[in-house]
Amino acid sequence: MTIEHLNSGEILSQATATDTTVYLCGLTGGDISKDIQGQTRDTLAKIDACLAHFGTDKSKILSATIYLDDLRRKPAMNEVWKEWLGDLKRPARACIGVQLEMGTQVEIMITAAR
Amino acid sequence: MTIEHLNSGEILSQATATDTTVYLCGLTGGDISKDIQGQTRDTLAKIDACLAHFGTDKSKILSATIYLDDLRRKPAMNEVWKEWLGDLKRPARACIGVQLEMGTQVEIMITAAR
Amino acid sequence: MTIEHLNSGEILSQATATDTTVYLCGLTGGDISKDIQGQTRDTLAKIDACLAHFGTDKSKILSATIYLDDLRRKPAMNEVWKEWLGDLKRPARACIGVQLEMGTQVEIMITAAR
Repeated sequence: MTIEHLNSGEILSQATATDTTVYLCGLTGGDISKDIQGQTRDTLAKIDACLAHFGTDKSKILSATIYLDDLRRKPAMNEVWKEWLGDLKRPARACIGVQLEMGTQVEIMITAAR
Repeated sequence: MTIEHLNSGEILSQATATDTTVYLCGLTGGDISKDIQGQTRDTLAKIDACLAHFGTDKSKILSATIYLDDLRRKPAMNEVWKEWLGDLKRPARACIGVQLEMGTQVEIMITAAR
Repeated sequence: MTIEHLNSGEILSQATATDTTVYLCGLTGGDISKDIQGQTRDTLAKIDACLAHFGTDKSKILSATIYLDDLRRKPAMNEVWKEWLGDLKRPARACIGVQLEMGTQVEIMITAAR
């Protein structure tokens, strides 16, 4: 099977894909001066871009793992998440608290169909 | 590819499925008055129900990620896990300690074939 | 669909596979007297062996989730990771800090194509 890679760097690719499935890396917003909602919006914009590269979109997300540096930020993150998904059916999801890079409040890892 | 969704709510679906693979959300027992073994049993019962919805079952689990609020509960959780799987071959699995919702001691995320 | 299992034990299989995809368990080096780089090398050697069992290899890794007991060890782990991948294109990857078994500094979970 041929595997496609998006922006393969020193450490990781932003995404890989088979003919049926796209695997995104753990994406973060990048600008840690923003609050949880700003970081979530930036992260979701990157997810949109990665999915678009493989000709798919957020309606085809199968599973999302959301890492927060503090679970108390979950309600604020969820507001942005719901707004982003709009009327679409939701993916399967887990949301857990872990240690992230200093200042990063949210990191999201996605598996999607294409 | 058509994606099927099980109980798509405000935030997440309990599960999504392609024609070959089922992705369950991070499932929890729900009754946090129970101890780790009770919570694990309730979680595994929900997993059975979700898999059954897509015409598959625990014999076809490919991978499980088990989140515990405290890794010291792993031996007690494992007893229930082994009992649940009986003589079946085991899935691939990781079990790590993370921050979960207050009172939740175990959350399990499953990928299965159908 | 037929699922293949590698070394199914009491708790887990080291890996499972469908006809297209291999799911590895959360692998660790095993010798906790080693430092992060030694543990990472041992873990990656086990990954190589598991992938080889299913006729695939590290060039076909789609996604990796790396669990560290302390994110400050990430640069040291990354050195070994980069050396291991050499000139290959990188998989999608997330790397987060979580609670691992006492003494374990790194645990890696892989999904690969075959």
